[in-house]
Amino acid sequence: TLQHIFKEIFKASLELQEDDNRKALLVSRKKHPENTIVNVKGETVGDGEQRLIMGPCAVESYEQVAAVAKEVKARGLKLLRGGAYKPRTSPYDFQGLGLEGLKILKRVADEFDLAVISEIVTPADLEEAIDYIDVIQIGARNMQNFELLKAAGSVNKPVLLKRGLSATISEFIHAAEYIVSKGNGQIMLCERGIRTYEKATRNTLDISAVPILKQETHLPVLVDVTHSTGRRDLLLPTAKAALAIGADAVMAEVHPDPAVALSDSAQQMDIGQFHAFVDDLIASGLYKDATKTPQ
Amino acid sequence: TLQHIFKEIFKASLELQEDDNRKALLVSRKKHPENTIVNVKGETVGDGEQRLIMGPCAVESYEQVAAVAKEVKARGLKLLRGGAYKPRTSPYDFQGLGLEGLKILKRVADEFDLAVISEIVTPADLEEAIDYIDVIQIGARNMQNFELLKAAGSVNKPVLLKRGLSATISEFIHAAEYIVSKGNGQIMLCERGIRTYEKATRNTLDISAVPILKQETHLPVLVDVTHSTGRRDLLLPTAKAALAIGADAVMAEVHPDPAVALSDSAQQMDIGQFHAFVDDLIASGLYKDATKTPQ
Amino acid sequence: TLQHIFKEIFKASLELQEDDNRKALLVSRKKHPENTIVNVKGETVGDGEQRLIMGPCAVESYEQVAAVAKEVKARGLKLLRGGAYKPRTSPYDFQGLGLEGLKILKRVADEFDLAVISEIVTPADLEEAIDYIDVIQIGARNMQNFELLKAAGSVNKPVLLKRGLSATISEFIHAAEYIVSKGNGQIMLCERGIRTYEKATRNTLDISAVPILKQETHLPVLVDVTHSTGRRDLLLPTAKAALAIGADAVMAEVHPDPAVALSDSAQQMDIGQFHAFVDDLIASGLYKDATKTPQ
Amino acid sequence: TLQHIFKEIFKASLELQEDDNRKALLVSRKKHPENTIVNVKGETVGDGEQRLIMGPCAVESYEQVAAVAKEVKARGLKLLRGGAYKPRTSPYDFQGLGLEGLKILKRVADEFDLAVISEIVTPADLEEAIDYIDVIQIGARNMQNFELLKAAGSVNKPVLLKRGLSATISEFIHAAEYIVSKGNGQIMLCERGIRTYEKATRNTLDISAVPILKQETHLPVLVDVTHSTGRRDLLLPTAKAALAIGADAVMAEVHPDPAVALSDSAQQMDIGQFHAFVDDLIASGLYKDATKTPQ
Repeated sequence: TLQHIFKEIFKASLELQEDDNRKALLVSRKKHPENTIVNVKGETVGDGEQRLIMGPCAVESYEQVAAVAKEVKARGLKLLRGGAYKPRTSPYDFQGLGLEGLKILKRVADEFDLAVISEIVTPADLEEAIDYIDVIQIGARNMQNFELLKAAGSVNKPVLLKRGLSATISEFIHAAEYIVSKGNGQIMLCERGIRTYEKATRNTLDISAVPILKQETHLPVLVDVTHSTGRRDLLLPTAKAALAIGADAVMAEVHPDPAVALSDSAQQMDIGQFHAFVDDLIASGLYKDATKTPQ
Repeated sequence: TLQHIFKEIFKASLELQEDDNRKALLVSRKKHPENTIVNVKGETVGDGEQRLIMGPCAVESYEQVAAVAKEVKARGLKLLRGGAYKPRTSPYDFQGLGLEGLKILKRVADEFDLAVISEIVTPADLEEAIDYIDVIQIGARNMQNFELLKAAGSVNKPVLLKRGLSATISEFIHAAEYIVSKGNGQIMLCERGIRTYEKATRNTLDISAVPILKQETHLPVLVDVTHSTGRRDLLLPTAKAALAIGADAVMAEVHPDPAVALSDSAQQMDIGQFHAFVDDLIASGLYKDATKTPQ
Repeated sequence: TLQHIFKEIFKASLELQEDDNRKALLVSRKKHPENTIVNVKGETVGDGEQRLIMGPCAVESYEQVAAVAKEVKARGLKLLRGGAYKPRTSPYDFQGLGLEGLKILKRVADEFDLAVISEIVTPADLEEAIDYIDVIQIGARNMQNFELLKAAGSVNKPVLLKRGLSATISEFIHAAEYIVSKGNGQIMLCERGIRTYEKATRNTLDISAVPILKQETHLPVLVDVTHSTGRRDLLLPTAKAALAIGADAVMAEVHPDPAVALSDSAQQMDIGQFHAFVDDLIASGLYKDATKTPQ
Repeated sequence: TLQHIFKEIFKASLELQEDDNRKALLVSRKKHPENTIVNVKGETVGDGEQRLIMGPCAVESYEQVAAVAKEVKARGLKLLRGGAYKPRTSPYDFQGLGLEGLKILKRVADEFDLAVISEIVTPADLEEAIDYIDVIQIGARNMQNFELLKAAGSVNKPVLLKRGLSATISEFIHAAEYIVSKGNGQIMLCERGIRTYEKATRNTLDISAVPILKQETHLPVLVDVTHSTGRRDLLLPTAKAALAIGADAVMAEVHPDPAVALSDSAQQMDIGQFHAFVDDLIASGLYKDATKTPQ
């Protein structure tokens, strides 16, 4: 019985410690029970409505981005993604248009009244970039680039933080804490698949991370179905799963002509597939923003 | 240009080879495009309707199983799960009631007109067990126990095959092929989470495996939300994701008093939670069998 | 300070609990500090000397096994491996010669005065097999085939237990406990690589498992360099690492003509490579059994 | 037979393509068969001699670093490690002394005639840091911080590049290519364990990566035994494995008083353990630099 008492103390202290740790974080729901609603140029994320964030993997030209933006706009969507600084495994792969790409995004955003999301890969680029984009994306490879997190935490602009390739949920939450600890609480968390032994998909979509992140933090949680799966044929089913499990937004890549895309050609939707994708989500009854989307 | 032609030949031959391999398997949809519908004592799995398979982790007593069966029956469900032979990490953990457990399942099944699913762990037990159960379950740890697969392939009884702890989708499909190659094509595949570095959940539910398995094979695909997550708070959200992505059935554990369960006490639902679970799935509009379920 | 005291109690109780658990196991070094030395037909494993266990992946014919056995004998080695029951991913791959294969092994063992190690895959085969082999191998796919473990624990014959494809060290130790709990303590543990995201090797050799297993248990620990790496060019370097870190034996596959082998053709050494392998290990000074090996 | 010819063409073209890709990289041994020998203030790495790189996890004070440096010097070693910018999971953990830490390292290096290795975490710090350190370390979390790689490639100072937490060997090689593509070829690759499901060690030391990296590239390959294992009791056995498999250097952490260390207290050696570690490596006969080390 002494041992039993000891065991109970042990369990109690274990739970106490864990609770303490979680409570201490600014991103923790224990600290702040209400949902954080991120406002991107008037479009809200995290308020119960569900959003679609679509656009090309990389910005290649004004024409390419505008072609996608036109369709995105036509479906009543507001959030456009597109990469200008592209982190690529090989130095000999297309590295993105850089500042030129951001200018294209800005021009398109102005013309179509959209908000643009683009990845920033180093603190030095941040100041310059901030005038051109509406959401700073921090990519999977930079989830623990702490200097970049601190820099993003020091500006007044929403941040979309992607989960690292093999980051634990706890590390992901602490990465967000780096940002908020510098003063910027406008953060969206994005599950984008984790690295496992299974190679049938590019990564393994950790769908359970969505309810866990919503429970542990007060931040909006997104699912990037393109990078999770790396397979065009899985975009629609995984998007349904993401909406059903309560993701605040789904992110996917669209390109006017994926076959000639400078990156990720195998996994982007073309315009027709994009419309079919939105149609199918509406038809499924899962997409909670459907009322706003003209059909 | 010679190099280009060479490349094209290369790609074509690669695809041809892969197609050939897949076509050769009896479980392949290429070989047999129509869905296999498994009939379990009159209840169908794989025909577009979605089923719930519920019951205790382990059979502990007649009273315990009957208590769950009564509620399962009350919701119009037909499929009851319960383990009699329990594969446990330690030899000193509860190993199940064995044949006695199967007899309890049979008695309960008869009384409530339910079909029972129970795991068999070695070929020698199969002959004896077959009179007591309606579906032979082959567990994750035995997915590549090829002698057991062959034995299950030699009887005329549906088989529920769980994916191995770290099995690839291809290995999972080949394990099913072992069964069908012996003559038994009544197979249900069950995704139950894979082992990854992430420890926030007991395993990582590989939700993308569901559409891949349905595309590659003609067999029904189930999701076991209990073993995927190991967390009671994630059963409902992951069940929603499973239904949304097209799983033919969802499996979860229910126990009259989880706190005193002899195994898996932290992850089983109690009776009240079970009813809330079914209610919430119906309310979500995701559960395609809802019409049959009295509310 | 109250919190500090609480923390200390917490840590102490955590350590106490873990110690208790480990102490309770029969395989634990806490329970039995001396090394278990397994005696295989006069050849010892686990006494500080280091052994090489070589032989073909699968038994294909008397001539094939004898050709390897002759060379193994010529180097003063005693332990010959060869598979008669082959667990294969696909039912259409070569499944081994079964009992016929065991008879070949027995004949070769008698002619060359060697001890033979061969995998058994199901309890039903065990009784029959036991007259033909000197060590029962339980393969990675069957590490948690608990009925097979119990059966192997009930006979009086050394067991070589391989670590499961994605088994934790703790699960591996508990699998050995299943065997010893039935009365058979003549167990050798074999690290053979674990499944990870890295595909440059067939599996990832978890070299740290060797000192951990030797510390946690009193059993001999082996390293199978063939299945860990799946690459002929890595057999020698990983064998050196295994000997340097204290493995009691190294296991590798040798075939008279790997190119026509019915399984694992890409990773077996031919006779010339086998001699070069032994020569290089002796020359490295790492191989503690070198004095017994004629050059 | 037509099919057979087709298959042969297929295999040949596959090999050709892979060879082409590898040959194209500047770090590839196909491009540059001779070993790159990195010269750090007169100490060579990669020339067949084997080195030990020791020092505290984090620079905490002049006294702390000097206490370790004195012992390192006493053993005839030349390379001292120590972190000034510390990438930490939580923003509330000790973040390192920054520039102040680099100044301490420089002062100690001058006094004891040692070369110092320290991690740089963002391009902006590089210019300033370069006057204080002899080797730029790029840590696991920044292995795909491509802007940092490019910055390190643009200076004339050796770089120690650590493998990412879940980087493939191919990604690791391409990260090195980012550095050399900017003009700096003085690169050392460091295996430091990969993230897997196994939690008995902090990471899983991928020992096979050493011979693969030496075969695929012409760069020196190191093994960090501290971060691979996260366990003081495994430093010596894994160091032996690393030396036996052909690592050009072994890295490990030493602290005058690990119990009060501001980071990684559980895994650093104290001074006595450091001397025992060096003694044991010399006694093992594995350490090829032993002749230079006074005993």
